[in-house]
Amino acid sequence: MPRLTDSERSELLPTLDGWALVEGRDAITKRFVFGDFNAAFGWMTRVALVAEAMNHHPEWSNTYNRVEVTLATHDAKGLTRRDIELAQRMDQMAAGLVKG
Amino acid sequence: MPRLTDSERSELLPTLDGWALVEGRDAITKRFVFGDFNAAFGWMTRVALVAEAMNHHPEWSNTYNRVEVTLATHDAKGLTRRDIELAQRMDQMAAGLVKG
Repeated sequence: MPRLTDSERSELLPTLDGWALVEGRDAITKRFVFGDFNAAFGWMTRVALVAEAMNHHPEWSNTYNRVEVTLATHDAKGLTRRDIELAQRMDQMAAGLVKG
Repeated sequence: MPRLTDSERSELLPTLDGWALVEGRDAITKRFVFGDFNAAFGWMTRVALVAEAMNHHPEWSNTYNRVEVTLATHDAKGLTRRDIELAQRMDQMAAGLVKG
């Protein structure tokens, strides 16, 4: 899986909702805020099943209703299409669960 | 739930397996390393059910087979018996799953 080319970045990154590039690293990050721990961890569980099936896993941290996610492709040492796909799946699964 | 007294700390903290005090904060931390993501997230799911039932939630981050946990009691602004209890439950549930 090759790293995203410049033209792929220009095309794909603007389609993501609320994801930002990480300073000093070829990765993207987003903070999800849910109604409570139940919603946050329920979402994490759905994401975990998808991530395992993709064999592509997030770096993430959780405190009560908040989950901070960073995505990058370890083998490629940077962003690939799999990160874009996982980010999109995460957003789809968070719809209706996130606050505000 | 009051913060642990000095004598409770002397009694309880040495009973924990591999937990360390956090520098500059009244909290404890431990890094769990599992065989793979399946084991790590399976353990997190068991812990999440216990944490929700206790209404006492960890701060934790996960990258593939590793989970870093920090425990403190938000309302007490420091360590209480609930943190000791959750740490013990986490260790019990990790038995047989952690590497080495």
